[in-house]
Amino acid sequence: MPQEIERKFLVTGEYKPQAYAHSRIVQGYISSVRGRTVRVRIRDERGFLTIKGASNESGTSRYEWEKEIPLCEARELLKLCEPGIIDKTRYLVRSGQHVFEVDEFYGENEGLTVAEVELSSEDEPFVKPAFIGREVTGDVRYYNSQLMKHPFTTW
Amino acid sequence: MPQEIERKFLVTGEYKPQAYAHSRIVQGYISSVRGRTVRVRIRDERGFLTIKGASNESGTSRYEWEKEIPLCEARELLKLCEPGIIDKTRYLVRSGQHVFEVDEFYGENEGLTVAEVELSSEDEPFVKPAFIGREVTGDVRYYNSQLMKHPFTTW
Repeated sequence: MPQEIERKFLVTGEYKPQAYAHSRIVQGYISSVRGRTVRVRIRDERGFLTIKGASNESGTSRYEWEKEIPLCEARELLKLCEPGIIDKTRYLVRSGQHVFEVDEFYGENEGLTVAEVELSSEDEPFVKPAFIGREVTGDVRYYNSQLMKHPFTTW
Repeated sequence: MPQEIERKFLVTGEYKPQAYAHSRIVQGYISSVRGRTVRVRIRDERGFLTIKGASNESGTSRYEWEKEIPLCEARELLKLCEPGIIDKTRYLVRSGQHVFEVDEFYGENEGLTVAEVELSSEDEPFVKPAFIGREVTGDVRYYNSQLMKHPFTTW
């Protein structure tokens, strides 16, 4: 069973000059139920369907299944999604051997920027970039599926 | 947007001698929310993921998206499903120009057999086979997503 091991941080410093790539992401949830989220995503001009299982106790690891799907199908499936669409730009920033994904949110989540790093094990060391603040791994408020229902500007 | 137009009936007579094919189906729901059901199905040794949108008012037509997925992935995704798994044998029976899918249920839905026919329009005529009883199109109790939560033997 493929597992996704991630740690998530608030972003408190400047990261854009160091980004080597970025893409616009629009996504919704056909199911935002924890333990079985079903996400439809359009990243630039490509569509993806992703299903995520339950997290382990520390919130760092969960089963993830993803398939690329035709853009036109992703657009149709977005129409079925629960109310609330996530709109953000994702920047990729290298730090040592790892890549941090920095998400800058728009709309109802304007003002929130978080960074995630994917690891091969929960205790794998990594170089902490200077723009990283407090760790929020496992804090469900920062799950995209929750940001949709309880957006940052309403906290 | 592809639409699924189906009419559904209770089965009250003998159909097995007329069946030209049959397959065993085991399925679960990652989401059984009406308007956005996400179904994982194993049909004989093949896996499928299906997303269905909301029905129109008469219950005959709804958006359907389906992809074949590897069997091993379908088995993993079944583990994420809501409690309650549907287990049935589907028989295919010709009637005039159409094929009726006759589902004989097991387990908690033992005793229930329903037949469905797919049509190209809501008023397309078809030859009614002798084994067909009362029409139950649009009756949500007979949706597989409902049979899982409120199985036939508990009615």
